[in-house]
This record gives sequence, C-alpha cells and structure tokens, in this order.
Amino acid sequence: MSKNQITKIRHSLAHLLAMAVIEKFPQVKLGIGPTIENGFYYDFDFSVSRSNYKRIRANGSRIAEEDLFDLEERIRELTKQNLRFKKETISFNEAKKLFKDQPYKLELIEELKKSKKPITIYKTLENKVISHQSSVISQFIDLCAGLHIKSTKEIDPEAFKLTKIAGAYWHGDEKKPMLTRIYGIAFETKKELENYLTLQEEAEKRDHRILGQKLELFTFDQEVGAGLPLWLPKGAILRHSIEEFLFKELLSEGYQWLVSPHIANLNLWKTSGHWGFYRENMYSPIKIEKEEYLLKPMNCPFHLKVYKSKIRSWRDLPLRFAELGTVYRYERSGVLHGLTRVRGFTQDDAHIFTTPEELAGELLKLLNFATKILKQFGFEDYEIYLSTRPQKYIGTINSWDKATKALEYALKKSKLPYQIDPGEGVFYGPKIDIKIRDILGRSWQCTTIQVDLNLPERFDIIYIDNKGKKQRPIMIHRAILGSLERFIGILLEHHAGSLPLWLSPVQVKIINVGASQRNYAWSVLNQLKEAEIRAELSDENLTVSKRIREAEIQKMPYIIVTGEREIKNETVSIRQRDGKDIEVMPLEAFIKKIKDEIEKKL
Amino acid sequence: MSKNQITKIRHSLAHLLAMAVIEKFPQVKLGIGPTIENGFYYDFDFSVSRSNYKRIRANGSRIAEEDLFDLEERIRELTKQNLRFKKETISFNEAKKLFKDQPYKLELIEELKKSKKPITIYKTLENKVISHQSSVISQFIDLCAGLHIKSTKEIDPEAFKLTKIAGAYWHGDEKKPMLTRIYGIAFETKKELENYLTLQEEAEKRDHRILGQKLELFTFDQEVGAGLPLWLPKGAILRHSIEEFLFKELLSEGYQWLVSPHIANLNLWKTSGHWGFYRENMYSPIKIEKEEYLLKPMNCPFHLKVYKSKIRSWRDLPLRFAELGTVYRYERSGVLHGLTRVRGFTQDDAHIFTTPEELAGELLKLLNFATKILKQFGFEDYEIYLSTRPQKYIGTINSWDKATKALEYALKKSKLPYQIDPGEGVFYGPKIDIKIRDILGRSWQCTTIQVDLNLPERFDIIYIDNKGKKQRPIMIHRAILGSLERFIGILLEHHAGSLPLWLSPVQVKIINVGASQRNYAWSVLNQLKEAEIRAELSDENLTVSKRIREAEIQKMPYIIVTGEREIKNETVSIRQRDGKDIEVMPLEAFIKKIKDEIEKKL
Repeated sequence: MSKNQITKIRHSLAHLLAMAVIEKFPQVKLGIGPTIENGFYYDFDFSVSRSNYKRIRANGSRIAEEDLFDLEERIRELTKQNLRFKKETISFNEAKKLFKDQPYKLELIEELKKSKKPITIYKTLENKVISHQSSVISQFIDLCAGLHIKSTKEIDPEAFKLTKIAGAYWHGDEKKPMLTRIYGIAFETKKELENYLTLQEEAEKRDHRILGQKLELFTFDQEVGAGLPLWLPKGAILRHSIEEFLFKELLSEGYQWLVSPHIANLNLWKTSGHWGFYRENMYSPIKIEKEEYLLKPMNCPFHLKVYKSKIRSWRDLPLRFAELGTVYRYERSGVLHGLTRVRGFTQDDAHIFTTPEELAGELLKLLNFATKILKQFGFEDYEIYLSTRPQKYIGTINSWDKATKALEYALKKSKLPYQIDPGEGVFYGPKIDIKIRDILGRSWQCTTIQVDLNLPERFDIIYIDNKGKKQRPIMIHRAILGSLERFIGILLEHHAGSLPLWLSPVQVKIINVGASQRNYAWSVLNQLKEAEIRAELSDENLTVSKRIREAEIQKMPYIIVTGEREIKNETVSIRQRDGKDIEVMPLEAFIKKIKDEIEKKL
Repeated sequence: MSKNQITKIRHSLAHLLAMAVIEKFPQVKLGIGPTIENGFYYDFDFSVSRSNYKRIRANGSRIAEEDLFDLEERIRELTKQNLRFKKETISFNEAKKLFKDQPYKLELIEELKKSKKPITIYKTLENKVISHQSSVISQFIDLCAGLHIKSTKEIDPEAFKLTKIAGAYWHGDEKKPMLTRIYGIAFETKKELENYLTLQEEAEKRDHRILGQKLELFTFDQEVGAGLPLWLPKGAILRHSIEEFLFKELLSEGYQWLVSPHIANLNLWKTSGHWGFYRENMYSPIKIEKEEYLLKPMNCPFHLKVYKSKIRSWRDLPLRFAELGTVYRYERSGVLHGLTRVRGFTQDDAHIFTTPEELAGELLKLLNFATKILKQFGFEDYEIYLSTRPQKYIGTINSWDKATKALEYALKKSKLPYQIDPGEGVFYGPKIDIKIRDILGRSWQCTTIQVDLNLPERFDIIYIDNKGKKQRPIMIHRAILGSLERFIGILLEHHAGSLPLWLSPVQVKIINVGASQRNYAWSVLNQLKEAEIRAELSDENLTVSKRIREAEIQKMPYIIVTGEREIKNETVSIRQRDGKDIEVMPLEAFIKKIKDEIEKKL
C-alpha cells in the first residue's frame, strides 16, 4: 500500500472515532484529529458534555481505557456501512455558523482566516445503499484539510485498534485547557496490525528504562531534573568501556583528541551562527561579569578554534579532531524519554578538515570506519540515506555538487546500499545518515556524516597549499554512535539487556556455596581481576539460588559457583546466561577463554 | 624573624614609598598601602598632581617602571635616617581637617566613622639624632591602623625592592577611579630577597602558561571566554593518561565509578545548602520551562542521590563513589591565571560513606592511597595540616571530637608529619589538607580529606545496621590531585615541562634523515605504536637539526634518528632529552626499555 493510502485510512479512522464519541457524548467539544506514526488520535473536551453513558467512573472522568473497547466496536460497525467522505470548501461565515457549538473549531477557523487559507470541511455521509446496521448518525462534518479515503469500505475493520487515553493541552500549550486524547493504531491488514502489536509487546519487554533499573545502570532524579541521567557504577563502567574503545580506535585511525569546556561566551555562538539559527535548542544565558555565556549544544566552534590556534599546511591535512563532548540541548519535558531523548548527552563527535582533493577519499575511509565500529556493537543492518541540497542553502551550487559527488563516490566505493533523500540536506551541506536496524526491525538514526560549506567561512579558517597560497579547507562533521546515552539505550533494547561480554559491567559473578569456600572464591576473584576481567563476589547473606537469580536478572554473562568439589579440583563451574549447559574447567582455562572472547568483542 | 615583624617592616616600607612619592609629586592623592604576600603596595592618584619630574612620559602617564629605581633609592635613604613611627588616635573632626586635601583618605575616615571604629594615624618622624642626609621631609602622617616598626633602622635597606606598576580601581570597584599601584617586595635580609628573586626567575622560566604553549598542550581563546581552557591534542592525551591512571587505581582500591550531569535543578542546590552558603561561587541560573537550573560547582549532591537510589546495608559500607567531575565556579576575571585558576575544572572527586566504626581505618587507607598517587607524579614532599572545629560549626561537639580523633589517628598511623591548624576546619567538619612542595619549594594545596557531618543529615541518607536498625553514615569528601587543570599546571612547573615518560604526550619522536629512510622510519613508528608507545614521525620538510630542535623544545623524552647505518643494522640511535649520550640499540631492546620505564612510571 502506498504511504498515502494508509495515511488516508488513519485520518478517516480519526473521523470515525469522533463520530463514535459524539454518539455517546452529544455535547463533547472536538479538538483536532490528525494521523501519527502507525495511527491517529483525536482530542476531546468532555468537561461540558452530559454523558449518556450509564456507568459513572470512580475517578469522575467521563471516559476510561475500558470504554475504548465499546468505541472500537462502534467504529468497526461504522466502517462496515461504507460511509463516504466528501470534501467541500466553505466561506468563513458558513464555517462559523456550522461550528457555532464547537469553540475549538471556531478558534481554528479564525486561524485559517488570519493565514488566509481556504476553509475546507469533510462530510462523512451514508452511502446510497443504506446498510441494515445504519442507525443514529446520518452525517458527520469536520473542519479538515484532508486527505481521506473515498469510502469506509477501504478500511479493514480488523486492522485497527484504539490503544490509550492521555491528557493533552489544547495547542500543546499548558496555559490552555487540558483535553482528552484518544489514540488509535491502524494498518492495511489484520496481519500487519498483529505484527505491530507483537513487536510492541517485545519492545516493552526490552524497554531500556526498565532494563536500566534492573541492571543498575542509570537513574533519574526529580530534584536533579528531567532528562539528566545519573550514571550508576555499573552504567559508568559500561560508558567507560565504550569511551575507551572509541579512544583507542580513533587514535589508531589518525584522529587527535580534544577536550573543550561546556560553556562559552555568547560571542562564540554569534560567530558560529548557532545564536542566529539554533537558538531554540539552546538554554538561556548565564551572566558572568558583564558577559553572557551559553551551555554548548555542539562542539564544532571549539574545534574550529583549535584549528585556528596554529598555522596549518596542506601537509597537516586531513586533520581529524575527536572529542567525547557533553552537550546540552533544549527538549520540552513532554518529549523526554529514558536515555533516548535527554537534555544532556555525550556525542562521539569529530570534525575533519581536508583539502577538496582529499574529500572523497576521506569520506570513504570514514564510511568504512563507521560501519566497522557499529559492527563491534552487534549492528550490521543499516538504512543509509544521502541527503541532497535543500531549497534554502548557503554556498555555491558548484560546491554543493562537488560535495554531493564526493559523498556518492564514497557510498558507491563502500558498496553499501543507500537511498537518495532529495532536498533533505542541511542548509550548510549534503550529508549521509546511517540508521541502524535493531533486532526488532526498528530503525535508529545514529551515524551522520555532514559536509559543512558554512563554518570554514564563518571562522575564516585556512591552510597553506603546496604553492604557498592560502586555501579554505572543507569541514566534515561526523558522529558514529551519535549520542552515547541514546546509543546505550538502543544497545540495551537490541540485546534485551544481555550486553556483549566486552561491554558487560560485571563479566563474571562468583558465588561461593558457603563460608568454607570463601577463601577460594576470593582467590578466584583476585585472579580474574588480575587478568583485567570485571568480576564480582556475591553477598553470602542470600541463598545460592537467590544469588544465581540476582545475577541472571542482571544478565551477567558468566556465573561461577564454587563448592567443595571445585576447591578440590581447582576448577570453576560455569553457567552462561543463555542457559547453556554448565561447564566445569580449570580456572586458568576459563580466564583464557574469557580473555579471548573479550578480545574478539563477542 | 616572626611573621609579625616582617609584616611590620613591609607595612612601614609602604609608608616610606608614599613619602618618596609625595616628595616628587606633592599634589598626589593617596589611596591605601597594605602588606601583601612577600611585600606591599601603595595606591596613588596622579591625575591631579603637577609633576615636578623633569621627564615627561611618552604615553602621558606620570610614572613608569623606570622611575621605580629613583624611588627605591630615595626609600633606601629614608630608611637610613632612623625615622620613628608613632601612633596616635584622633577625633573625626581632627582627621577631616588633617586629610582635607586627600579625598580618598576622607572617604576612609567616613567609613571608619560609620562602622564606629577609632581613627588612628601613624606619624613618621625624624629621629632625635638627625642624620646628615636628612633633607626635604620632616614628617609624614598616614591614616593607618598599624602595625609598624619602631624605627626604620629595623629595615635592611638592601632587602627590599620596588617591582612593578599596575592600574587598580579604588576599592576594587570598576565604577570608581583607576589609581596607580606601586608594588614592592621586602624581606629581613638581602639574602632572603636574593633567594626570592632567583626563585621568581626560575618560576618564570617554568611558567606553565608558556610551557603549555611550547608543548602545545592547551590554549585560551577570548571568544570562548576567560578561564575556560581548550585542550589541544597533546594536552588531551596528557589529561587522558592521568584520567586512565586514576580510573584503574581507583577501581582496584575499591572505588565505584559515577558520571553525573553538569547542571541540576535549583531544588537540588537548596537541599544541599549550596544555594544558601555557596551561592557567590556559583553562576547565574539557566531557565528551563518554569524551573531554574545551575551549573554544578560540586559533585557531592549527585553522589548523595546515587547513594539514595538503593537501600544500603552495613555490609555495603564503606561505599566509595568516584567521579572525574567537571565543575564550574565563579572567579573574577582579574584573578584567573593559566590553568591554576580557571572557571571550569575537573576534580578527581570522591565521596566515601562509612559507618562511624570504620571511619578511622578508612581515613588511614585514604591517606596512604593519596600519598601513593602523589608520588607517582613525582611529588614526595608534603605540608600536611589537620584543621579543627571553627567558631561557627554545625553538629555536636561530640561528633566533631570523634571525627577529629579519627583524622588524628590516621595521621599518626600513617607516620606522616603534620601540623594542627586550630579552628580552620570547614563549618561542616574537620579536615586534612595536603600541600605538595614543588622543586622550587613552593607549596600547592592539592589533596583534601574532609569529614562531612552536614550533608548526610540534609539528604537524610541511612544504612541498615547489623541489628536491622536505620543509622546515619558518615560522609568523607576527598580529592587527591584536586583540580586536574591546576594539578597539570603544577606538574608542568615542577618538571619544567619535562614530563615523566608515562605522561609525555609524545614519548618517542622519530626523525628520518632523508626520503630513503622513510620506509624504515614508518616501520619503526608502527612497531612502537603496536607496543602502545606514543610515537610521532617528524615532518621531512625541515632539516634534521631543526627537527631535533623542535622535539627538544617540546621536551620529548626520546628522539630516534634513523639513517642508513641504522637501517643496515636494524637499530635505532636514541637521544634522551636530558642530554645523555646517544645510545644505539636494536629496536626491540629499545621498546622493551621504554615499556619498562612506562610500567615503572619513570
């Protein structure tokens, strides 16, 4: 099915939802009913309705999740009546009359008038062949720009579902009334719906926010603030493993490391253009003496300053500056979500400065490097997009063409499959985005490689070419994992918490049966630590089975139980978290095995 | 000499300086003339003076550094006249009359009146035995609370020096007039003065700001902002070496790692008390939606939140939370100094939570650990202070006594020599400070170990004791290096830039004589990198001697020159930065030697 058709179906279902609600609550006031990813919603104001519903909710609200079933049933009936959708354009006065009892619609009509847009309505009408089920409603009219299906017979009555109720401010503005939002999902076929629901269920089990708690990786605290994760010891070790891995890989790839501050004078953000073009994502200024400072939303201006701290020759290029830079960006509290949407996060950021001649080669190197890194974390399935010149852009068409060709060259040479996303480049240059597909088939934007035709100019950076002339280098912004926080969230969901051995905060859990094996357990612990394996001895205060259970909940890769037999034979009994058979082997062999697996990033 | 006596001498020299200036500029207006570390200054307003100086300065100012010589000479003459200092208390009206031509003094007199303090003056009078040199001045009267020497014969005329001229706002207030400040230094003996000057000269050569530039470690940028260092690639590697060293040492010492955000809601800082007691060191709030957030000046509140994220048993204690936390503290731009006084810096911070019973043992462990770490950086000479209960304190005397005894126990057991600094504890608990003495004998406050009797209460943290009862743990704040930035500044000055091998950003510089040795040089580079040695190949574009010189300026520990002979014999010729003989050895032996030295932290 085309993307268009399913959107029309979802939009039409939103109207049918409104019809069903009006039947039950004739005085309900209607907000808006748009489509969203996988479905639709409609906002209602029940505060003025006199319910003809027989049940009265304990909490006094007019509608509850259990009512969704009835509403869903009624929509299903409506779809079977082959109702038609008909568009009409009406005048401002007609509209005002038609929606005189609908204050929110009147507000929208006023807005349409102000912006001089045409006022269109959609009527949902009974078909000529009147279904035997047809009853209360004869027609429903909604203020709507469309688009809709022709008739409800295009809807599979078994391929949609109402999912939940939530509060939502009118116009998303907390100063305006709180409406009741009813959400639905809809697909072309029942099978698609079922697949989606199974996926959702699986995704819920893998929710990184829950795993983060169980594995004791991170926490949030209201007094600290929303969207600001606190990394607990095990999470901090996980972060550190990733950071050190990146540090070593980047140095051996020829990157140079930088560290820059978290705040900078407003002047810097004016020079960089962030103050002009990116301000809504930045936090309010801090005053220091007579000047204003801003939390950094990006690291680029600092890297440009480092570039400028020295005269650069063509011999020094490409210069690759990398930083694990913690940036802060404004997000509304409503959209924050675990680690995947936060207010402060650490980017595996880098900026590459190159001559135009070396651009294509550098991009190819970069693409290969990025996929190499992603693979180490278990991500081998990508959606890759090349985004080209948008309508609003800076720089010359010639420089855009050259940069786009360099990106295309790299993609082709790398043999990675990709799609063109026409006009979706950033205003300062074309880019390649790599979305990683997780085990549930969900795509997550991680890697971005952007050519920047703007900042080298703004900061007036140059290099001396082989003829002794000043030249402007090309700048590439790139992040591979993107945000460490977000990437760890994805990683947890992808692996359902069973992190690869090399990333596991505790690689081996040692459980001694009783006090008489304590010494042996300690000696095992020390030998593992000696070998730089992250091991932990469990609290003797619990039973052995409870201790095993705890280690399993935390998805620790290996559990060693040490009893009398193990002491006698100088061995360890190993349980793997994937439930494989218990193996017994000499400690030395076990250490070798694990070190091998860590080395191979298993 | 007692600290008192040298202070009196310095203060008296400030008066003599004023006398000498008045002789030359009878209409000069006087500011204040206090003592400072190693010397004194006096502030003058020359703007109304008609100079009787013959020379007129090119820049129009009344006085310049070259005039200091004449003034110094005149002061020397005055000291030889055995002038007496005599204190008198006078009335407000007398004072106003006496200083009627001195507007700044009149301001001070008004202030004294307001604060109801007595008004005292010091007269500098000719001695009964009038020296044959006695000339212009018969007496000088200054508004002054003292103290002074009895007679200028207590001053060694060869033990002082006027050092520099600077601008200074009256009362340090930039809205008030800019005065001219003349600085001097003074000691009891000529030898002491000479020692001080030699030390100053040596210190200037070791100035970490200059070394930081030469070694390409860090830079500052006006547009980024004052006090916010940008770490260049070599500096970032140095930082990383220290950070990784600490990370490993701390984990093996039983610390747990944390990562916390750089901002937090105002509520957190209210709970912690920082908003109440530490606000002047914090930057102005950032508004996010309806709430205020602050850049963190400290990490403690976050660590307390992590403590609270789980129920803690006596079995879990001592809990040791460590973080390399970057904090931001307000400093006036005037006091910023290279890396040693910045606005943003990274603390090697940790908080230890312990039962009262384990406090003393934990403190001993901590002291030994701190000195072990400091020694690894080449600091083996300490001044240690135990600071006890101040006048304003919170908590019970009993808890203070117990905490102080625990600190004393640890100091005694560690056998480290220490002094008591009575009443110099923080309001929330007693502490141990370790100042490291550098090679020039200068002391730098680095390590601090503070018992906190306040925050556990404020955050209401508890643990369950072995009887199942709730108990309040004791909290220790501790930093060993203090601030990474400041510590690196000290480290650079201590080693005059010749960092220990294990900390050197580039451990080996490879210089190939010409293009025909390029391949060999590359193979040497790769083998060194393989062995995790930080090596760099130099730019062939320069002459060999220039390349050696560059490596020497950057104080690189080893320089390898590869010529034809080295290729033939598969050896390397090694120059050490300390100018030792050139050694020739097989590459393999060289790698072994260096790895050995790195391992031993030489």
